[in-house]
Amino acid sequence: QLSELLEPLHAADVADLIEQISPPERMALVELWGEEINGEILSELDESIREPLIEALPAEVLAEAIRELDSDDVVDLVEDLEHEQQSRILEALEATDRIGVESALSYPEYSAGRLMQRELVALPEDWSVGQAIDYVRNNEELPDQFYHVILVSPAMKPAGYVALGRLLSSRRDTALSDLMEPSFRTVTVTDEESEVAYLFNHYHLISAPVVDENGRLAGVITIDDAMGVLDEEHEEDMLRMAGVDEDSSLTDTVFQTTKGRALWLMVNLLTAILASMVINLYAETIDQMVALAVLMPIVASMGGNAGTQTMTVAVRAIATRELTPRNAIRVSWREITVGAINGFGFGLIMAIIAALWFGVPMLGAVIALAMLFTLVAAALGGIVIPIALERLNIDPALASGPFVTTITDVVGFFAFLGLASVLLL
Amino acid sequence: QLSELLEPLHAADVADLIEQISPPERMALVELWGEEINGEILSELDESIREPLIEALPAEVLAEAIRELDSDDVVDLVEDLEHEQQSRILEALEATDRIGVESALSYPEYSAGRLMQRELVALPEDWSVGQAIDYVRNNEELPDQFYHVILVSPAMKPAGYVALGRLLSSRRDTALSDLMEPSFRTVTVTDEESEVAYLFNHYHLISAPVVDENGRLAGVITIDDAMGVLDEEHEEDMLRMAGVDEDSSLTDTVFQTTKGRALWLMVNLLTAILASMVINLYAETIDQMVALAVLMPIVASMGGNAGTQTMTVAVRAIATRELTPRNAIRVSWREITVGAINGFGFGLIMAIIAALWFGVPMLGAVIALAMLFTLVAAALGGIVIPIALERLNIDPALASGPFVTTITDVVGFFAFLGLASVLLL
Ligand SMILES: [Mg+2]
Ligand SMILES: [Mg+2]
Ligand SMILES: [Mg+2]
Ligand SMILES: [Mg+2]
Ligand SMILES: [Mg+2]
Ligand SMILES: [Mg+2]
Ligand SMILES: [Mg+2]
Ligand SMILES: [Mg+2]
Ligand SMILES: [Mg+2]
Ligand SMILES: [Mg+2]
Ligand SMILES: [Mg+2]
Ligand SMILES: [Mg+2]
Ligand SMILES: [Mg+2]
Repeated sequence: QLSELLEPLHAADVADLIEQISPPERMALVELWGEEINGEILSELDESIREPLIEALPAEVLAEAIRELDSDDVVDLVEDLEHEQQSRILEALEATDRIGVESALSYPEYSAGRLMQRELVALPEDWSVGQAIDYVRNNEELPDQFYHVILVSPAMKPAGYVALGRLLSSRRDTALSDLMEPSFRTVTVTDEESEVAYLFNHYHLISAPVVDENGRLAGVITIDDAMGVLDEEHEEDMLRMAGVDEDSSLTDTVFQTTKGRALWLMVNLLTAILASMVINLYAETIDQMVALAVLMPIVASMGGNAGTQTMTVAVRAIATRELTPRNAIRVSWREITVGAINGFGFGLIMAIIAALWFGVPMLGAVIALAMLFTLVAAALGGIVIPIALERLNIDPALASGPFVTTITDVVGFFAFLGLASVLLL
Repeated sequence: QLSELLEPLHAADVADLIEQISPPERMALVELWGEEINGEILSELDESIREPLIEALPAEVLAEAIRELDSDDVVDLVEDLEHEQQSRILEALEATDRIGVESALSYPEYSAGRLMQRELVALPEDWSVGQAIDYVRNNEELPDQFYHVILVSPAMKPAGYVALGRLLSSRRDTALSDLMEPSFRTVTVTDEESEVAYLFNHYHLISAPVVDENGRLAGVITIDDAMGVLDEEHEEDMLRMAGVDEDSSLTDTVFQTTKGRALWLMVNLLTAILASMVINLYAETIDQMVALAVLMPIVASMGGNAGTQTMTVAVRAIATRELTPRNAIRVSWREITVGAINGFGFGLIMAIIAALWFGVPMLGAVIALAMLFTLVAAALGGIVIPIALERLNIDPALASGPFVTTITDVVGFFAFLGLASVLLL
């Protein structure tokens, strides 16, 4: 009955279903239906629940599941497992596959070497279309999916690739080297996977050969995996900017989630205390005019929002390589000008509101000036900090937030309360 | 000299270069090098600078550039142009191509019908491998790139597709219908492009046939375009969450940028004023104890950050379909529990700091309780608001922020100042 329901579903949908149900339901499902869990389903599962599931599976089910997978999916499956479980899976593989997976695991995490699959079609660069077609037709061990044949030199260095559509539509006596695609680009095993995803998106690649440190063909990366990495990189940026642990998942426990949030809240507590110390400097001033306490969060809040706007634009533009040393100064000037214009405009609006609300015209002047200062500082911090972090090789998505908020809070409170103490009392 | 420099570059890199330089440099480049600008470069350019550039190009250069493009790229190029320029480009096309582009333009913006290309290979579903290969080999008008042949019924309804690798490696007498890929999935012209991008990523599709309202084959979407949409959707979410106009670009003018930021700052000003009105209710209380004014931004800031954390996780999980009605309650409970734990922990830390700083133990109790209330409210708002907006068909990435911030500010100030007025005075 369960099989009737799950059988027709795509592995990705079965995996989603397993992720959606509660942990006890999940264990019951594995007990009832565990033997039907195949490699595809395992590799679609979120890592956080994959591990306990692998542990629960009978050895022969697991071995069979693993053997049907491409090498890149096996690598993805075993790379985060504990040593013991890792060996258990590797032993289930045939010797050649095992050596391939082990060599992929020798490359750094999040590298092209981990992302590539070994299953590919490589042909001598001096072959003709006819030779290629005969080879493909008589080969039993072709990859499940392939879209190009890779041309290699006798030393196994890739020289280009030919799209299958081109191969199919050309005469048998055509030289393969006359059909090579101009989009051809290789990746090195040690390249970061985020670089690879950028390359695929930028150059509209469908597949890219991967070479080892000696320039020899080691594997191939396909666009579906690059698209997956692009998606993960975005998730990482988004969660990091919000101060959430980027490895967190909806299936995490309460304890894991709490831990993943607490670090950033601690950082925020420290910067908030710093801002409070600025306010404390002006405790006297506030004591003489409580309206200041009422209005000061407005200045800080507008600064925080304007800073976040600029910072988000900067972080995104750095990720897409649109913000470069070439145009950094021009973009910074634009941001600062925009900050000044919005600071002036919203300062003016707030000046009128404050003056009418508390009946003190000078209070309006103070808040207008403070708003102007703060929004310019927010723009400056929002653009300079991500650029500086990027130059220091720190991920701007991770670290920009606390710096920018601290700047806008401190400048906001200093400007507003400082000006008030001078102009109002 | 300029040509020597630009000639070897990929169109995407030439486009990046044109985007990076300043507007006067850009005009000079077009004057000098305009005749070399081809369709590929035009379609890689950001929309904000594409339009003036198209206007500046000589008619025959433009016509030639357009004619070499696939229909999906032509559609992307003309869809945002003004009517006059649009007709200028459409007239440069051959009649059949023009009709194809015009019919694509008849589908809604951001639909699959706008994303698909008309160039595809469709074969009768009852053909054999041999017939398919002979057809492809003798056809002059094949698409530049194709990875599957689509099998259609006599009424042009797609029945499946065959990967070229499978076609190449099978015997000539094999029926095509025996080689169909199980991953086959069609898209409808009116489907949203974000749906399409999700489908490609979820099911690892390389291409997907598009059918019209009558189920007849209308075109095909390829994964490189789906990957581009996925990237844009992420940009949209990221910018919307930060309150930046999602169509903004680094090449925008100061005026466009200011406008794109001001709307959100206006919304934020209104919510900040609302929070100030809450503070104003307790002006008396603050007047009696200035320490309250010093500490109150800490409570609001912690609430704002915790709310943003939960909200970001929720917005992302809704986009990836991980958060569904099936698990919404379980995830909400987890968030609220995490909010309570962190509220308790950070409340305790802040209680000690506040008590020592101002020498008033009861002030510590007040801030601890306020922190607990606020972080629970932040978690509740952060998860419930995105879910509710999604059900109301409002993009949670766009609208969650202001609601969540308002909740955390209002609850934070109410809880802290309200408790203070009861317990301290
Ligand atoms: Mg999934
Ligand atoms: Mg992994
Ligand atoms: Mg990996
Ligand atoms: Mg793969
Ligand atoms: Mg990563
Ligand atoms: Mg990143
Ligand atoms: Mg570009
Ligand atoms: Mg467009
Ligand atoms: Mg479009
Ligand atoms: Mg295309
Ligand atoms: Mg969209
Ligand atoms: Mg969206
Ligand atoms: Mg966009």
